[in-house]
This record gives sequence, structure tokens and C-alpha cells, in this order.
Amino acid sequence: MRLTVYTDYALRMLIYLAIGDDGQARVGDVADSYGISRNHLLKVALELGRLGYVTTTRGRSGGISLAKAPQDINLGEVVRHMEDDFGLVECLRAHGACCIAPSCRLKVLVREAIGAFLAVFDEYTLADLAADNTALRSLLDLGQGHGKLPSVA
Amino acid sequence: MRLTVYTDYALRMLIYLAIGDDGQARVGDVADSYGISRNHLLKVALELGRLGYVTTTRGRSGGISLAKAPQDINLGEVVRHMEDDFGLVECLRAHGACCIAPSCRLKVLVREAIGAFLAVFDEYTLADLAADNTALRSLLDLGQGHGKLPSVA
Repeated sequence: MRLTVYTDYALRMLIYLAIGDDGQARVGDVADSYGISRNHLLKVALELGRLGYVTTTRGRSGGISLAKAPQDINLGEVVRHMEDDFGLVECLRAHGACCIAPSCRLKVLVREAIGAFLAVFDEYTLADLAADNTALRSLLDLGQGHGKLPSVA
Repeated sequence: MRLTVYTDYALRMLIYLAIGDDGQARVGDVADSYGISRNHLLKVALELGRLGYVTTTRGRSGGISLAKAPQDINLGEVVRHMEDDFGLVECLRAHGACCIAPSCRLKVLVREAIGAFLAVFDEYTLADLAADNTALRSLLDLGQGHGKLPSVA
């Protein structure tokens, strides 16, 4: 089971922006920090812009910055927006061809499970991922942060 | 977000066996009924056999049958067994390369969401998918069933 690379990159870009000094960065710098494709990340940035999560500025001093405070960016909404296909099994897809779909309870069960999955994300905002970010800033080579991150498993 | 085709096919094969007259079928017949690859389904059948969910019999009259009663086949276990990769995002994969993984809370959150997803499947057994199966038997061209399936969305 996988989330798309776009959802993964979107969450990572938002984390980067939220722990940065002024919530602003260049796409190339974010891509370099994570060691991921600049082109892929550029598409993600444009989509995040279209969705109103970030603003982009062109030019030499341009970049990307958060359009909302981290506590106003709900992670369930981000995942729902970026992950455009929740067709986990054939019967949930637009052109699904499973012959028992009209009467099968599996799709009801899978929908319930997807709901439970997203409900967990709904409980958190970007601020929860960015709080106490000394360790994250260090790992992204962003200098000193604003607190000590508790140990996570 | 997708489950693998193997998990999808495994669930469909188990449903087919559970609603059949004697819990037995030929892989080719199951593949034909669903309109899916016989070769893919054969691999799924062998894996279900290895996991103890079905027994396979060789020869002209051979086939595949449930090794347990449907109510003893927990769907959460089936999904955990068949879906061998829950690396939804980079940091949860065996060779994940996200530089902030050591201190990032995203992986904690995603693990919690996967747990909530699987907990829904844990609440059901194959018997829940196979009960009142008139409509399912009809759709699979298996003749009359044993009750009326309630309408599902």
C-alpha cells in the first residue's frame, strides 16, 4: 500500500517550509535537501499553490512560501487533495470491472477503512509536524531550531 | 492509494470460495468469472495455500478450497499477509532515503493511520462478506444462493 510520490513530496515540502526561518524557500533548495527530483517537486509546488497552501514568487529572489499558518493546514485535507485516487481495489475505481461490485460488501469495508485512515490525518495539522524542530532543522541543514524534538519511534 | 493486485485478487478468490456450493473451485473458473488473469490468480492461490487459508488439490478433478470456515478467516490478517509492503511514504520503506526520517513525526502519524486502516479489516471475517449471497452467486453465475443481500452503497 502506497501513497503517491506527490502526496509524499507535498508533505515533505510543507514540513520544510514550516520549519524554515521565514516559511520561504526555493524549490531547488528543498529538492537538494531531500535529494529528490526538482522537476517532480516543482509540479508539487504548483499544485500546492493551486490549492492555496503556498504562494510562489518568480524571479531571482523568488521562491515558495506558506500561504497559511501551519496550524491552519490540516493534514487530512492535504492528503485528500494530493492523493486523487483512493481506488484501493478494483471496485472503487472509476472504470472498475469487478463483476460482483454491485452487491459486494468489500467496497463498503474498504471505504470504511479509508475513512479511518484519513480520520487519523484529520486530527493533525502541519504545526504538529513542525513543532520543536531543532533536529529537523539540523537534518535539513537549516541551522539551529526552536526546541528539542521528542524521540520518535 | 492502492492495495496490490494480489491482495485484491486474494480477497476476491476467498469470497468466491466462501459463496460456492462446497467451498471448492478451479482457479481457471474463478479467473473466468472475474475476468482476470489466470496466471496472477494461480500465484495468489499458491500464496493463500502457503498461508493456510486454502488447500489445493492437483489433477483433473482438482481445485482449490477453503482450509478454514469463513468465520475463522479474519480479513485484517489476510490483508496483512498479502500486502507485504506498508511503506506508504519514503521513510517507512526498508531502504527509505528521506534525510529527516530519524526525527520526523510524519512516519509516526502514517503508522497510526495504517493501524486505523487495518483495525477496520480486523473487525470482519470472510463470513461477513459471504453472508446472504444470492446476489453475489448470481453475479458470479453460481446459481441460487442462500438469502437476499442487503443493499450496499
